[in-house]
Amino acid sequence: MTRDAHDKDMHKNRPLVGAEPGTLSLPEGSPSPRITLHVYGDESYLSREIESPGEISRWLAGSETVWVDVQGLGDEATLWELSEVFSIHPLAIEDIVHVPQRPKTQAYDNHQLLFTRMLTGGREGNIGLEQVSFVIGPSYVVTFQEREGDVFDPIRRRLASDKKTLRTKGADHLAYALLDTIVDAYFPVIESLGDCIADLEDEVFAGKGDGTLHALSEIRSTLLMVRRSIWPLRDTVNQLVRDDVECFGPEVRVFLRDVYDHCINASEMVETYRELGAGLMNSYLSVVSNRMNEIMKVLTVMSTIFIPLTFLSGLYGMNFVWMPERDWKWSYPILLGVMVTISVGLLIFFKRRGWFRKR
Amino acid sequence: MTRDAHDKDMHKNRPLVGAEPGTLSLPEGSPSPRITLHVYGDESYLSREIESPGEISRWLAGSETVWVDVQGLGDEATLWELSEVFSIHPLAIEDIVHVPQRPKTQAYDNHQLLFTRMLTGGREGNIGLEQVSFVIGPSYVVTFQEREGDVFDPIRRRLASDKKTLRTKGADHLAYALLDTIVDAYFPVIESLGDCIADLEDEVFAGKGDGTLHALSEIRSTLLMVRRSIWPLRDTVNQLVRDDVECFGPEVRVFLRDVYDHCINASEMVETYRELGAGLMNSYLSVVSNRMNEIMKVLTVMSTIFIPLTFLSGLYGMNFVWMPERDWKWSYPILLGVMVTISVGLLIFFKRRGWFRKR
Amino acid sequence: MTRDAHDKDMHKNRPLVGAEPGTLSLPEGSPSPRITLHVYGDESYLSREIESPGEISRWLAGSETVWVDVQGLGDEATLWELSEVFSIHPLAIEDIVHVPQRPKTQAYDNHQLLFTRMLTGGREGNIGLEQVSFVIGPSYVVTFQEREGDVFDPIRRRLASDKKTLRTKGADHLAYALLDTIVDAYFPVIESLGDCIADLEDEVFAGKGDGTLHALSEIRSTLLMVRRSIWPLRDTVNQLVRDDVECFGPEVRVFLRDVYDHCINASEMVETYRELGAGLMNSYLSVVSNRMNEIMKVLTVMSTIFIPLTFLSGLYGMNFVWMPERDWKWSYPILLGVMVTISVGLLIFFKRRGWFRKR
Amino acid sequence: MTRDAHDKDMHKNRPLVGAEPGTLSLPEGSPSPRITLHVYGDESYLSREIESPGEISRWLAGSETVWVDVQGLGDEATLWELSEVFSIHPLAIEDIVHVPQRPKTQAYDNHQLLFTRMLTGGREGNIGLEQVSFVIGPSYVVTFQEREGDVFDPIRRRLASDKKTLRTKGADHLAYALLDTIVDAYFPVIESLGDCIADLEDEVFAGKGDGTLHALSEIRSTLLMVRRSIWPLRDTVNQLVRDDVECFGPEVRVFLRDVYDHCINASEMVETYRELGAGLMNSYLSVVSNRMNEIMKVLTVMSTIFIPLTFLSGLYGMNFVWMPERDWKWSYPILLGVMVTISVGLLIFFKRRGWFRKR
Amino acid sequence: MTRDAHDKDMHKNRPLVGAEPGTLSLPEGSPSPRITLHVYGDESYLSREIESPGEISRWLAGSETVWVDVQGLGDEATLWELSEVFSIHPLAIEDIVHVPQRPKTQAYDNHQLLFTRMLTGGREGNIGLEQVSFVIGPSYVVTFQEREGDVFDPIRRRLASDKKTLRTKGADHLAYALLDTIVDAYFPVIESLGDCIADLEDEVFAGKGDGTLHALSEIRSTLLMVRRSIWPLRDTVNQLVRDDVECFGPEVRVFLRDVYDHCINASEMVETYRELGAGLMNSYLSVVSNRMNEIMKVLTVMSTIFIPLTFLSGLYGMNFVWMPERDWKWSYPILLGVMVTISVGLLIFFKRRGWFRKR
Repeated sequence: MTRDAHDKDMHKNRPLVGAEPGTLSLPEGSPSPRITLHVYGDESYLSREIESPGEISRWLAGSETVWVDVQGLGDEATLWELSEVFSIHPLAIEDIVHVPQRPKTQAYDNHQLLFTRMLTGGREGNIGLEQVSFVIGPSYVVTFQEREGDVFDPIRRRLASDKKTLRTKGADHLAYALLDTIVDAYFPVIESLGDCIADLEDEVFAGKGDGTLHALSEIRSTLLMVRRSIWPLRDTVNQLVRDDVECFGPEVRVFLRDVYDHCINASEMVETYRELGAGLMNSYLSVVSNRMNEIMKVLTVMSTIFIPLTFLSGLYGMNFVWMPERDWKWSYPILLGVMVTISVGLLIFFKRRGWFRKR
Repeated sequence: MTRDAHDKDMHKNRPLVGAEPGTLSLPEGSPSPRITLHVYGDESYLSREIESPGEISRWLAGSETVWVDVQGLGDEATLWELSEVFSIHPLAIEDIVHVPQRPKTQAYDNHQLLFTRMLTGGREGNIGLEQVSFVIGPSYVVTFQEREGDVFDPIRRRLASDKKTLRTKGADHLAYALLDTIVDAYFPVIESLGDCIADLEDEVFAGKGDGTLHALSEIRSTLLMVRRSIWPLRDTVNQLVRDDVECFGPEVRVFLRDVYDHCINASEMVETYRELGAGLMNSYLSVVSNRMNEIMKVLTVMSTIFIPLTFLSGLYGMNFVWMPERDWKWSYPILLGVMVTISVGLLIFFKRRGWFRKR
Repeated sequence: MTRDAHDKDMHKNRPLVGAEPGTLSLPEGSPSPRITLHVYGDESYLSREIESPGEISRWLAGSETVWVDVQGLGDEATLWELSEVFSIHPLAIEDIVHVPQRPKTQAYDNHQLLFTRMLTGGREGNIGLEQVSFVIGPSYVVTFQEREGDVFDPIRRRLASDKKTLRTKGADHLAYALLDTIVDAYFPVIESLGDCIADLEDEVFAGKGDGTLHALSEIRSTLLMVRRSIWPLRDTVNQLVRDDVECFGPEVRVFLRDVYDHCINASEMVETYRELGAGLMNSYLSVVSNRMNEIMKVLTVMSTIFIPLTFLSGLYGMNFVWMPERDWKWSYPILLGVMVTISVGLLIFFKRRGWFRKR
Repeated sequence: MTRDAHDKDMHKNRPLVGAEPGTLSLPEGSPSPRITLHVYGDESYLSREIESPGEISRWLAGSETVWVDVQGLGDEATLWELSEVFSIHPLAIEDIVHVPQRPKTQAYDNHQLLFTRMLTGGREGNIGLEQVSFVIGPSYVVTFQEREGDVFDPIRRRLASDKKTLRTKGADHLAYALLDTIVDAYFPVIESLGDCIADLEDEVFAGKGDGTLHALSEIRSTLLMVRRSIWPLRDTVNQLVRDDVECFGPEVRVFLRDVYDHCINASEMVETYRELGAGLMNSYLSVVSNRMNEIMKVLTVMSTIFIPLTFLSGLYGMNFVWMPERDWKWSYPILLGVMVTISVGLLIFFKRRGWFRKR
Repeated sequence: MTRDAHDKDMHKNRPLVGAEPGTLSLPEGSPSPRITLHVYGDESYLSREIESPGEISRWLAGSETVWVDVQGLGDEATLWELSEVFSIHPLAIEDIVHVPQRPKTQAYDNHQLLFTRMLTGGREGNIGLEQVSFVIGPSYVVTFQEREGDVFDPIRRRLASDKKTLRTKGADHLAYALLDTIVDAYFPVIESLGDCIADLEDEVFAGKGDGTLHALSEIRSTLLMVRRSIWPLRDTVNQLVRDDVECFGPEVRVFLRDVYDHCINASEMVETYRELGAGLMNSYLSVVSNRMNEIMKVLTVMSTIFIPLTFLSGLYGMNFVWMPERDWKWSYPILLGVMVTISVGLLIFFKRRGWFRKR
């Protein structure tokens, strides 16, 4: 995880301490809202970008399902207009803007609010984190995203194509489909983290790799971040399933249970990888210890063999007047023999201790 | 655990993000279904391989119990046909195909769905993991396996043999017997892991073993994998016992409680071995530290004794013109005496510090 | 965290063991109470410092909302007077004075008691911890602070300015606003701790930093202290939301739920940082181990190459009478060649073991 | 724990996977049942060994309390006979034979089944683990033990002696007394483990002990084994207390609560010792590290002082033709002075760093 | 914690395994009971030591409140007499004598039993642990202590002094006051442990201290012991508050809630210190590692610089006949120059690697 992503995850874009409720503090760097309207029924399908939220009202009156997709939270006026069109509570608008919210759901008189976190990227790209807020009404769904780019393209294609599966269903089914897509998008990310851990494991046991430690530390941070997203999301979906939330029909609730299963799966995978990561950290420490052991053994073997030999040669390098051995003819070959004996003796000693066994 | 098995455990064969429900994404490499039909009653027993699911229907009408054993999930058409014969919900077929599912059970109008994970192998062979899905109806059981080969052979033998115990019971008893076999098959695997840990412990304390660390890490990963299977399986069986699931008669429910007991036993054994594994990791680190200590002691004893001696011999190897000791007759023996004194003094110093005690 | 702050956090200013209930033991060093009175309604706003609690009574009779802000707990008489004016139970006065109390709330006949902990400071300054006790009545709020200085200035400004939002609401809304301010003031502190951890992580992996270990240890202690405050505060707010506490109107309870959400957020951030801190400790240990490895390698490479060479040169420095090599013409260049060969051989040996790879 | 005991604890004597229920797989090495019959009332007491279970029936008809003590499970026929006499369910007989069962209790129509684990040995002897299964009927208790030898001797003595306390009570009181004895027998074992930990702690801090690590590891394994026994036993006793199990009269239930208290005590002691053991492991690692530090310091002090001195003496051992110092009269004493200065300087340097302080 | 205290905490003074209920096994070394009688009402106060429990009866009949304080459990007869006077159940007398009991409370027909653990000592003295058992009747309180000396002196003084606060209240209020005193006496002990940890932290980071490790290990054991006392005490007090125990009037129950708050505080402080202790252990290990690093660096710098120089000087100390350099005039100064170059080069190398930075 880049430190940047981490900052986004943890540092809430929140108003000043003690500010009055209803004060919007726009997320820094969030672009102006780009609003796309999708209106569809059994027979019809319309998708266009609109300029002002006012245009939406006349579509809401019809019998068709409306999906308003808002990408970017950078303009306060537009957000208040939307709040008016869909009569969204000011506190809810605040939660939409003050990203990141903890995933949660709240029931209002005429709509259900749902805050989720979308994970993008994965195997090849950088991991991105974005809040997606849902306003789910009887015949409409409004989604608010922090910025452009999301995982909803398959839904858009399914709406646009002539398959009737999605178009014949109501707004609750659309909300389910979007939520399902968000949850399913967690898996490639988690799996890519799992692959990284497996790669790191290979690296650790192969004993190579410059940045293994740093990489492992980053993966663990990222898993922590994903965990912070998936656990409350799981609770939220469970709440939708369990509490018989009004805006979801009984037929859709069956599908929500499926989404809940996926959430459980995702959170268990995260936990498993967290454990594997912790175990790997331990293995890494052991490998480092082992390597140190090996280095020490090389040093000790070399030093221990040559230190006495060097002493002996130093001994007979002394210049004392009276050193009888110096003048004997066989001193030199005898000393060489002694030296060989010492070396071999020490080598046997080390071998007996198992220092030459590869471990 | 081989990395391959791990991948199978974690990487779900799931459809693309945002795909329409009802899209089957067949598991890569799964063979074509091989369907074996078992039809039995008090007096009769028939077992044959069939080509097309259509043949099954006429057996279902009879009063005998039918077990359809499907091995391999590689052909979409056959699966849809089966779904039609037993009126299986499309979402259920998806769960059957999109392996691995988390063990769970779901009630439908006319049958109960049960997803389990079968562990094969153990003491001698490689550990394999496979999803076994059950469709349990009033007079039939359908089992779906990812590939051929399972732990059900004793059941087949008991059906084929003239013992009437199993044949006189209904489909719910068959389902119980199969589930019991799956759970019982966990024990040899878990026990073999426990044996591996005991062997590794011996290796660790004997101080030998090249790949101890790697082996320990693998066993811990495998235990994690088994744990991921046995815990939800335990919950699932508990749900069957507790929820008075319709398809199991009261007589069978007593036996299910026995299966639940086995699940608890298995999961507790896994937890115990996980703790033993973690403790062993610690012991390993300590053993490595101890060994390093010993190496350092050898080095330090040798260096510390010979370094001052070598210095002394170097001293009297100097070529200064004026070095009075050089010319004394007893310099050499006196110096040798000094050297012996130093050596003995240091040895006593080390002995006092307990460096020669074996630990 | 300075040890001083820690002491404040843990060492309760409590009466002697076995003392009679109702004995006040004033917090050491707490200044004399400075009482500020805020009286406001739709149209009116009054704020003045008062000398004696007796003056308050005549304001309580009116229809306006009264906020009595007591800063400093250093005078027993004043506290008993206040207790009389607002008929506060002696046990409650004790809890107000015997700081720090665990955050909690208690219902009395005519008012609600609320004990909270205010965290001040953060990014730039020192972290301070102070108990703020609330007495919340039908038309008044009394706040007791240990000493002057708090996070309530925005509330004071909002009351003083002509915006009517806060003034038109009752005492319960004021209590909410103050509580919200206290909870929101946790975030800058927690975030600054998170930033410190991120900085330390950079330091750890850059391998520099004298006091990294000490700093990390201090941050972890501080997180523990914040955790000790935020968890019971979270429980307390939850209790206010859940128990339908009488003194909070239904309209305010919606806002309290928002405060509860903030508490959850804060506590989860603390947990996340605690985990990151623990992981960082591990990384630090690994980095230290790695560095030791590197140092050992330098030593071993140098020693191992030069030790045999030094031995060889010592050998031919001996003064034996009979050493045939000494007198050969090519002995010297041959020996130099042997030495180069040994060195190169050892370097190749080390290279093969990967000792020169940077890791 | 010996590996043998561990194997007994973990490796269930279970039938083959998929075997038919009702198939008994006798525990390997279990002796033939030795059946002792105790029949007692207020005035009478009879104790004899019987050959065949058939003899028991005529005693059951009487008004006296019957205790049938079966030691050894090595004969299938006898077990089935007993099952007939007391109408024990086949599944229950299986659980009695397939040791070890997890402690549990099950209600049947005319009796209560209770599976417990008896811990023998302790301070002086080896720790043994044995399953004791109870069948508790209205006027009889049957106990099944894996082999001869148990902790019931005090009960036998109390029955045989003329004290009427136990003889005047019914079968439920006998069952309680036996269960109480089993639970109380845990304490000497746990306490002996605690003593071992305390001894090991002394050893660790005295820095001696060859097998400390191994011993610590074994104690932790044994604690894990005891924990695996005491926790489910505690749950089982709690179930007996809470569920108003029919076969225990209200008067005995008071005593069962006492047994439950003992179970809690035992399990908490185990947890405490487990924590102490884990802490001791940490201390051990630290002590090892400290010792390495000390060794390194000795080596470093010696090397660092003598290495420059040796270099200097080597320098003036060179044989260059032109070395002016060589020919000066005072070179030698000056050099000696320089050497002393260097040594003292380095010693001061080390002292300043606190290397000579004992730690 | 001394090993002695630990033994007292863990080794129960329990009767032999299988002993008959009602057999008292007196705590070893407990002195003979010293019974002090306090009888008081609004106007009267009497305090005297009595010889035989029989004397108490006539005071119980009166309208005054009676506190019987029994210090020492060393005489069976006296205990049975007391049991008769207050009609205490034999099982209860057993629990009073078989110290230490886990803190718990039990309701009997005419009185409430309460088992607590009193912690004495703290900042200056040794930590002592003692069981205090309460028998709380309508107009009397009996307290049993293991030995003389307790924390009740303030209560005695309050009873003896003319303040009427305590004397005008009933027996339940006295029981509360005693319990409150016991719980409050935990705080000085826990705080002194916290101070020890803070001192140890200073020692660890100052890098000094011989017995740091041992001291830390002892503090952690003591915290574990305190935890074993405070947690069940907390549960017990909670039970008194929650269960509307008959013997405590509604007015006293408010005060019990206060005691419960103190228990929570104490247990949370223990947990915090346990975490701080664990963190400190980690820091200690890191500091040890760092110190080893530093030692290694000194050794490596010295060795690495002088080893090549020593080799060079050894080289030109050889006595070969043909060594051209030996005879050159400038060889010696050139070699000195080479040596300086090598030294400076290595110093730069080490500086670049940051080895001279203090960390």
